[in-house]
Amino acid sequence: MIKAGIIGGAGYTAGELIRLLINHPQVELVFVNSTSNAGNKLTDVHGGLLGETDMKFTDQLPYNEIDVLFFCTAHGDTKKFLDTNKVPENLKIIDLSTDYRKESAEHEFVYGLPELNKERIKQAKRIANPGCFATAIQLALLPLANAQLLNTEVHVNAITGSTGAGVKPSATSHFSWRENNISVYKAFEHQHLGEIRQSLTQLQNNFTEDINFIPVRGNFTRGIFASIYLNFEGSEEDARKLYEDFYKDSPFVIVTDKNPDLKQVVNTNKCVLYVEKHGNKLLILSCIDNLVKGASGQALHNLNLIFGLDETQGLKLKATGF
Amino acid sequence: MIKAGIIGGAGYTAGELIRLLINHPQVELVFVNSTSNAGNKLTDVHGGLLGETDMKFTDQLPYNEIDVLFFCTAHGDTKKFLDTNKVPENLKIIDLSTDYRKESAEHEFVYGLPELNKERIKQAKRIANPGCFATAIQLALLPLANAQLLNTEVHVNAITGSTGAGVKPSATSHFSWRENNISVYKAFEHQHLGEIRQSLTQLQNNFTEDINFIPVRGNFTRGIFASIYLNFEGSEEDARKLYEDFYKDSPFVIVTDKNPDLKQVVNTNKCVLYVEKHGNKLLILSCIDNLVKGASGQALHNLNLIFGLDETQGLKLKATGF
Amino acid sequence: MIKAGIIGGAGYTAGELIRLLINHPQVELVFVNSTSNAGNKLTDVHGGLLGETDMKFTDQLPYNEIDVLFFCTAHGDTKKFLDTNKVPENLKIIDLSTDYRKESAEHEFVYGLPELNKERIKQAKRIANPGCFATAIQLALLPLANAQLLNTEVHVNAITGSTGAGVKPSATSHFSWRENNISVYKAFEHQHLGEIRQSLTQLQNNFTEDINFIPVRGNFTRGIFASIYLNFEGSEEDARKLYEDFYKDSPFVIVTDKNPDLKQVVNTNKCVLYVEKHGNKLLILSCIDNLVKGASGQALHNLNLIFGLDETQGLKLKATGF
Amino acid sequence: MIKAGIIGGAGYTAGELIRLLINHPQVELVFVNSTSNAGNKLTDVHGGLLGETDMKFTDQLPYNEIDVLFFCTAHGDTKKFLDTNKVPENLKIIDLSTDYRKESAEHEFVYGLPELNKERIKQAKRIANPGCFATAIQLALLPLANAQLLNTEVHVNAITGSTGAGVKPSATSHFSWRENNISVYKAFEHQHLGEIRQSLTQLQNNFTEDINFIPVRGNFTRGIFASIYLNFEGSEEDARKLYEDFYKDSPFVIVTDKNPDLKQVVNTNKCVLYVEKHGNKLLILSCIDNLVKGASGQALHNLNLIFGLDETQGLKLKATGF
Repeated sequence: MIKAGIIGGAGYTAGELIRLLINHPQVELVFVNSTSNAGNKLTDVHGGLLGETDMKFTDQLPYNEIDVLFFCTAHGDTKKFLDTNKVPENLKIIDLSTDYRKESAEHEFVYGLPELNKERIKQAKRIANPGCFATAIQLALLPLANAQLLNTEVHVNAITGSTGAGVKPSATSHFSWRENNISVYKAFEHQHLGEIRQSLTQLQNNFTEDINFIPVRGNFTRGIFASIYLNFEGSEEDARKLYEDFYKDSPFVIVTDKNPDLKQVVNTNKCVLYVEKHGNKLLILSCIDNLVKGASGQALHNLNLIFGLDETQGLKLKATGF
Repeated sequence: MIKAGIIGGAGYTAGELIRLLINHPQVELVFVNSTSNAGNKLTDVHGGLLGETDMKFTDQLPYNEIDVLFFCTAHGDTKKFLDTNKVPENLKIIDLSTDYRKESAEHEFVYGLPELNKERIKQAKRIANPGCFATAIQLALLPLANAQLLNTEVHVNAITGSTGAGVKPSATSHFSWRENNISVYKAFEHQHLGEIRQSLTQLQNNFTEDINFIPVRGNFTRGIFASIYLNFEGSEEDARKLYEDFYKDSPFVIVTDKNPDLKQVVNTNKCVLYVEKHGNKLLILSCIDNLVKGASGQALHNLNLIFGLDETQGLKLKATGF
Repeated sequence: MIKAGIIGGAGYTAGELIRLLINHPQVELVFVNSTSNAGNKLTDVHGGLLGETDMKFTDQLPYNEIDVLFFCTAHGDTKKFLDTNKVPENLKIIDLSTDYRKESAEHEFVYGLPELNKERIKQAKRIANPGCFATAIQLALLPLANAQLLNTEVHVNAITGSTGAGVKPSATSHFSWRENNISVYKAFEHQHLGEIRQSLTQLQNNFTEDINFIPVRGNFTRGIFASIYLNFEGSEEDARKLYEDFYKDSPFVIVTDKNPDLKQVVNTNKCVLYVEKHGNKLLILSCIDNLVKGASGQALHNLNLIFGLDETQGLKLKATGF
Repeated sequence: MIKAGIIGGAGYTAGELIRLLINHPQVELVFVNSTSNAGNKLTDVHGGLLGETDMKFTDQLPYNEIDVLFFCTAHGDTKKFLDTNKVPENLKIIDLSTDYRKESAEHEFVYGLPELNKERIKQAKRIANPGCFATAIQLALLPLANAQLLNTEVHVNAITGSTGAGVKPSATSHFSWRENNISVYKAFEHQHLGEIRQSLTQLQNNFTEDINFIPVRGNFTRGIFASIYLNFEGSEEDARKLYEDFYKDSPFVIVTDKNPDLKQVVNTNKCVLYVEKHGNKLLILSCIDNLVKGASGQALHNLNLIFGLDETQGLKLKATGF
């Protein structure tokens, strides 16, 4: 059994990770660290775990009892922690924050997008788990980058569920405001653009065109639906073939020939991709669950890869359907 | 023109009251007091007013410029204010908080449920505006109390929109939690039971039976839907007649013979009532908009009555329908 | 009093139109024609009218009793009707279908976008009321067209509420499917592109660039939120000034300097516009209520113009806010 | 491997059952029969299965290839089918319709509520799977019946998600109507009352008191939240102990001491129960997912019992949480 611990256990991604780990046949969750909740039951915070565990949050960090440590900490806090705490050399780390997503000679984190870096992940000791928008958008563009076909501006509109904004209450996560509401934020300037560009240039190093990204707040809790288009010379069939080929060994990416909807992926680790050609434009639709494929499911996928388990272990999740 | 001021202008009921007053042909809104927002535009807080007013919040209270003062303050704060501040003797006050809903020799507030106390309201100087649940439930029971027919336990289940819980963020008003969720709170012990009983005994002074009230948090923003039943000897037709007679002079209460749904009243000052007989039980369904009929619309109705205006002035609102 | 009739009274736009006309101080609704519902009460179909009218649907068309006839018919049916029925020469017609939106020598309908054609509308006898998406998108682009600044591709993503798809049940309007779901339809090929281009070229006749339009189905009932961008040389202030100037006499278009959200306009006849500059791109956000400004409210605005009434008569509607 | 077939494969309960069976380690889904969809892919109808199966609907019924046949047919159709078709004597049948829930000498179906009839189910050849409301309400009352404590009227209000009403579009399942709406239907007369009473009298045969049941249509897709109360002499602790004892061997029923919310059980096979004492009343809250514990999950639980598998096999589902 792989033994796992979590730091920052009270947030949404931690809750989702715990719900997944609890049912993983080859992982044992050893501790969940949370300063603010130490001593409380996990189920006090993550009510959906009721009947599945009696574990309590702890303020301890018994590194010696675990093989892998997940950071579900706020952005900035993982780096702060690692800068000031000594963790055992051989402890695997999977960080869900943004802190180490930019690859650099100054740290040894590998960018944990399995569809891009599977072999490097298998050898890695430390993983920077991709952002949710970044996951949906990269998966929609990697096959084109791989074919050196990203040669014009890219237009992206992606709408996200409220869980992407975290558990801390804010004006835009107040039910009375958000219910039946739509709004745009950080247009053209979302912080995930950096990691998206890093991945695309990894495959197509001459890619310098703009990615015009409009993030939208949706009135639902889970999921990201991205609609993306750019100029594309080939046919729709060419495009679909490109995508199918690129993802033929990626168990969680499904290229469909039927116009998709978001709920097909909600509560699963899938990314559903769909292409349509109009004039000289290729439209790509990309759907993921932001908490699973966009965060905790992908983190678990990375665990599976690092420890040599079946990639889909613990991640064959029932779609909610409705 | 009646000149009005508001204290506590940043909350939901204040927002709704402002949106109503702005369009009232015989009222001029003179100031909106808010300590926390003084100097900001009303539209910074109440975005739906965009294009309708350039007014700013003030920390002043120019009593001499107004005829009526609305308190949209938190529960407890109206009393605290009036205990420590001197307001002009002849200034009308309409208080939306709970502070003076219990009638008492110690204060001169009249309980402002127009369907019960219309004549007293017309003569009143100070009005305690009813609670939202209290409004929906009383209107469903007053005709029976009036006919001395409340002689068994009353069973009430009422589901409310999130705006009933106010603008201050909380765990149960977080979108990620509340969306598609249902929960119960303060079962059998909701604070509105006092004012409900006060009104019922005003009409039927021997009423002592239990009111078993289960309040439910709904996953919508506006509205209260109450389902109520109790023993009733007569026929369904008898009951409907009783209701129609009792409300024949109440322009906002509609007794329908068709099973209603909540959205019929959303965004209006209506209360829709429906009765159905099953065995020895009479089922009464009662729907209101908690922010309009259950708060600010009713407050404006009270203003109309106090100043001798047409009751429906400024309150002929378009239902959203959808 | 202007006397009005409606053909096709059972759908959503008819319901909204009736709810508006009922409260219009200078219009009397004389009849609502519906073949399928003749003899039924309006309130049987449009429950939100309860307590406001006892009128019944009729299968009659007493032209001589009315001054204006609204067509709330399905697309195609207005033309079919007018091709086969003789209506009095002097009867004003306001058609909410798509049938006559393309201006042509073959018919005398004027495209009824008041912000573009106000003077022509005032003189018109027959009005083709704009489409909902078309309204939101045109209003976002007209100031640029007027300044001859539409010189590059335009990128449009617009999400619509379910009422835009009408009352007839379908797979994509089933609650169990649509709730918390997102999907794209008619990408690059929505039928409103024709009327949008017609209006833009009316102001900038050399405009030939692509309008890349991705329509999105949202999980809410009312409203359209469009995010639009294109290349723009000037500053953000230049752009805002352009918009403010263009709309200075348009009472329902509000140019805001604060990032808007959809619910600011829901249940109103407003269009809220907002501009933001990023690099060489101008982002324009445009929000309307699809049933009001995008359909029945705009139709009533046209009535006001045709009959010389105050433009805003009957259209000062309270935003729902929440 | 247990081999399973499904009749009536296009509805919601069939979709959920397929999504569950696909991931069950000891069941193989051999065919899904659907007259209307024969030849189409399962994923054309149940989009959430994308990437999990290439199976197509069939119009064949190869009984000899299966061990168990699920009926996901419309109410009335299972009986009609079995009356006119001969199925192999030894084929196990699990029927999700209402047709055989009333136990009778005329058929051999066992009422498949595992918490009540586990031993009989293990021996059964044919199972009548309980209704969704019936499941939530019975589980809330069985411990009291078992203790012979159902001696007064029972008051039940239960709100259900839209999937309970099936895939066929109707006025009350139209998104534009149902979104943010609440309504009551079949008050006091819901068809599940029969099976509820059957189960309660099985444990307390002198139970004859009324069950006053108000079913409510909620604006969410999945789940049932029932609030129930009745007179109870003992303390809250007595009650909780009664419930804990009764369900100590029931892996899917969780008695919590913390006020629950519906989403704790959504997408799981759990029933969460909670008791609270107020005056002489005991309040019981009961939450299930109508499609899982209230239908297809319970059907799979019954399969596990019939074939001697671990009860929880294939049913350890991740709660959606949000």
